[in-house]
Amino acid sequence: MFENINSDSLKAMGIKELNGLCEDLRGKIISTVMTNGGHLSSNLGAVELTVALHYVFDFPRDKVIFDVGHQCYAHKLLTGRADKFDTLRKKGGISGFPKREESLYDCYNTGHAGTSISAALGMAKARDIKGEDYNVIAVIGDGSFNNGLVYEAFNSLKPLNSNILVIINDNGMSIAPTVGSMHEYLEILSNDSEEKYHKNRRVGIFERFGFKYEGVYDGNNIGELIPVLQKIKEELKTQSVILHILTKKGKGYAFCEENPEATHGISDGNAIPARIEYSDVLGKKLCELAEKDQRIVAVTAAMTGSLGLSPFFEKFPSRSADVGICEEHATILCAAMAAEGLKPYYAVYSTFLQRSFDEIIIDICSQHLPVTICVDRAGVSGADGETHQGVFDLSFLSPIPDLAIAVPKDAKELENMLDFSVTFNFPLVIRYPRACRRIFKSHSKIELGKWEVLSCGDGKAAIIASGERAITRAYEVSRLLKDKGVTPKIINARFVKPIDKTMLDGMEENVVVTIEDNVCTGGLGSLIASYMSASGKKIKIFGYRDEFIGQGNVEELMDDYGLKASDIAGYILNEIG
Amino acid sequence: MFENINSDSLKAMGIKELNGLCEDLRGKIISTVMTNGGHLSSNLGAVELTVALHYVFDFPRDKVIFDVGHQCYAHKLLTGRADKFDTLRKKGGISGFPKREESLYDCYNTGHAGTSISAALGMAKARDIKGEDYNVIAVIGDGSFNNGLVYEAFNSLKPLNSNILVIINDNGMSIAPTVGSMHEYLEILSNDSEEKYHKNRRVGIFERFGFKYEGVYDGNNIGELIPVLQKIKEELKTQSVILHILTKKGKGYAFCEENPEATHGISDGNAIPARIEYSDVLGKKLCELAEKDQRIVAVTAAMTGSLGLSPFFEKFPSRSADVGICEEHATILCAAMAAEGLKPYYAVYSTFLQRSFDEIIIDICSQHLPVTICVDRAGVSGADGETHQGVFDLSFLSPIPDLAIAVPKDAKELENMLDFSVTFNFPLVIRYPRACRRIFKSHSKIELGKWEVLSCGDGKAAIIASGERAITRAYEVSRLLKDKGVTPKIINARFVKPIDKTMLDGMEENVVVTIEDNVCTGGLGSLIASYMSASGKKIKIFGYRDEFIGQGNVEELMDDYGLKASDIAGYILNEIG
Repeated sequence: MFENINSDSLKAMGIKELNGLCEDLRGKIISTVMTNGGHLSSNLGAVELTVALHYVFDFPRDKVIFDVGHQCYAHKLLTGRADKFDTLRKKGGISGFPKREESLYDCYNTGHAGTSISAALGMAKARDIKGEDYNVIAVIGDGSFNNGLVYEAFNSLKPLNSNILVIINDNGMSIAPTVGSMHEYLEILSNDSEEKYHKNRRVGIFERFGFKYEGVYDGNNIGELIPVLQKIKEELKTQSVILHILTKKGKGYAFCEENPEATHGISDGNAIPARIEYSDVLGKKLCELAEKDQRIVAVTAAMTGSLGLSPFFEKFPSRSADVGICEEHATILCAAMAAEGLKPYYAVYSTFLQRSFDEIIIDICSQHLPVTICVDRAGVSGADGETHQGVFDLSFLSPIPDLAIAVPKDAKELENMLDFSVTFNFPLVIRYPRACRRIFKSHSKIELGKWEVLSCGDGKAAIIASGERAITRAYEVSRLLKDKGVTPKIINARFVKPIDKTMLDGMEENVVVTIEDNVCTGGLGSLIASYMSASGKKIKIFGYRDEFIGQGNVEELMDDYGLKASDIAGYILNEIG
Repeated sequence: MFENINSDSLKAMGIKELNGLCEDLRGKIISTVMTNGGHLSSNLGAVELTVALHYVFDFPRDKVIFDVGHQCYAHKLLTGRADKFDTLRKKGGISGFPKREESLYDCYNTGHAGTSISAALGMAKARDIKGEDYNVIAVIGDGSFNNGLVYEAFNSLKPLNSNILVIINDNGMSIAPTVGSMHEYLEILSNDSEEKYHKNRRVGIFERFGFKYEGVYDGNNIGELIPVLQKIKEELKTQSVILHILTKKGKGYAFCEENPEATHGISDGNAIPARIEYSDVLGKKLCELAEKDQRIVAVTAAMTGSLGLSPFFEKFPSRSADVGICEEHATILCAAMAAEGLKPYYAVYSTFLQRSFDEIIIDICSQHLPVTICVDRAGVSGADGETHQGVFDLSFLSPIPDLAIAVPKDAKELENMLDFSVTFNFPLVIRYPRACRRIFKSHSKIELGKWEVLSCGDGKAAIIASGERAITRAYEVSRLLKDKGVTPKIINARFVKPIDKTMLDGMEENVVVTIEDNVCTGGLGSLIASYMSASGKKIKIFGYRDEFIGQGNVEELMDDYGLKASDIAGYILNEIG
């Protein structure tokens, strides 16, 4: 079994043994992911490639960077982490992404798309500056290959003059099937024989940027991969190379092969089930609104399904756009459509919205355009760890002038906010996590910047909370306080921007705490504290402390990083005295 | 003269008259920019193109988007703004960039590179959704053409299926000469005759993405431009087109033609002169440090000269990288070089740093890599207006874990901070404006998170200020207060992150104000207020209010948007009572 395999012993194997190793790796990946959740089909597709890389190259002396990181499980299993692999994505366990902290064999952390070629170039340039001599390899899927970073890195390959190997792992899929002309070009290359390629096209795109192109090879065939990698290893001494391989996403597991999108990410079976997902509410409501309002269009960067937009895309294909993993372009597209009188909805995960920060400021907000950004997976997102937590959005969005930020307390309030958005003629963000676990009984009318008192309290303490999770914590705190004879007021801060100054000005409680599913710095609490500080009102902010938040389940992470209900209750009791 | 010319009367002119018009426009642009400052050479290069566009197309029905906007002056002069053109870049005057608020002929605001093709696609898609029928044109320079957004937009041209015209205005320059393979490719195309192009290359890069390529034409020759634009106008009915033209940056003004980089941006002759520019201090000091420390490398995204890096690039060419206008790629390149043991310095304007937000979080900080980001043009930047103010950086950087943020009080303190940076093994930002106007007498040792008391005061009030401009305001406030018998303590908040909690805890003054050259929301004051709010200490934050800041000179903008010394002094006096 692979537990005893390492790079050295692997190099002594024959093809048959290597194929057996691949089967073992695949089995371990499937069984682990089925228990712990994780990225299944992309990891299954990259097993042979990983084994071939370990056969031909010398890690960790040579460096391999897995773009996004959804292809790194086999690499982890072959580099001393097999015995701990059942802790995959668990708190304190093996990460689902490459992590320098975890192993010398993980040379660069990834998580967001398109960074691997830039990183490989930086490493190769550092190598050349230091006068050292090793190989640097970026493995990138055709989905990530759409991202503008690829072009930026390609464009500086010649000026930087440092040799790298880029392996395009072409499985025809982002999370959804890959869109765009670069993918179409890859398809053309795939359908050409090597000979035909060289005859028909004197200089191809990749050659223009300074790469030698090697392709197309069967990326699930070890016997085909090893000799071409050996040949490329020689070529790398004098030039940069692109190796284009075709792999089958979900390879070796029939259910995955047939359902690559559905099995891209598998959830942890132990997660508390959602009552409904906010994304589904978005998709359904947006369809309803779009029936009545011809201006409504929807845009996604390669995540139609996960964002709940599939019904919209099916019903209104001409008013839908999936632009591939191009968050910046998606943002500008929305701004421009709004400039021409349409009403665009851009749905995106909180962590990926970080990519569009400049375009939100310049293209949407400085032009005061009525784009609605639906920010999904906001707050801690769980097992994906540091690179996927959506805990910065309130902080980076709130300094932007002209932008309103709404946070629903439940799925019904998301619907109400979407109703509100249609009438609202300015930039708007609505942020929510994945799972909705409760539906409140009452829902007051949404008005810009108006908060809602959910529970009146006895006048001693007030909790201002934003979003379902924070409000749920507020109720937990309230239950803990009840035994001590304290009933706090609970306020639903439905808008983080603008804050409800009227309600704050009228607040009579002496003990006020804020709770948010966001870092403490620069979020809801910070906005309230900044406002109240001019009057000397005491405010205590509860949010995530100033640290990168690792993997774990949502409840664990909320407890561990600053939102433990008993801590909040303890603070309030202590202040009441 | 062109004051009486509009799109209609221009269409009635012959070539000779049009050439005369170009001369007139050129004269007006030169005389205005020489007085008001502005972007000279790129605007001069685009005069014939602009006139030809107005001859062939029907604005504002047809739409033209100028990438970055450094080519829009002639367009402004031809669209009803000639009589106000002497207010260019002045407070309340004509903007140096396209502005929807200013004219119907400006359909989309630009300012940051690479957005025009995405925006054109969004507009064209909106047009098709609405069932309307007009032309959408993006004019983009070869410098912007390096940006990843271009690739993202290209990649979705076929899926979006909406026809646009992209005009590549190829003058071989970004601000500095354009680097990279895409520019090399443009050069190859430029040197081919059209015939040769079609014979040699069955399908070129642009055709792969779905464009018909038309090139190369002389972009300073009206007689050549008009017929090709007329032909393209017909072609646009059925397909998207790229028109590749060659222009001369600075055309028609010998000094500009010979010095295109130096005359890219001309400063307002009335601006208060700097004692020294912070960028020059950076370049000089970095050379000094790099002599002793082989790990030091410097990276820029196409702004070597403006950032003061020219001496470094000349002295250490192999340890320097200009990656073109690719801020994201530059950031990752630095992270990767740091991962391999180097000590990278990435210099960038504050407003363009917004482009790298995600990479600062994921690539630099979540990996705890010792990259130093030197943030130039921080704070209000003046006459360029909304798209160029560097007033958000403290807010978007401070929520990022593991990042330290230093702000020098003068040029000497920048040197000290650079000394500090060499020994500091974590991510670090140093932010400063363009001009240094004073050098303080004393400079205490830089220690992480330690502030400096500049003036002790009489115990009644304290001013916490960050950076030269804010500290200068603090001294002005102090002078105003002196007549009233109040001497405030003045604190140099040299680190915005971490803040100096020891100093804050020991603060005995009852009246405390903060001053920063940044928006109020989420910056220094917000960090202090959030910290102090837990103890109920009253803090008043002075920074820019929550609005986009238009053009004007630095002092005007500071006064107008929230940092008027008399307001701050008035607040303090009122509080002291």
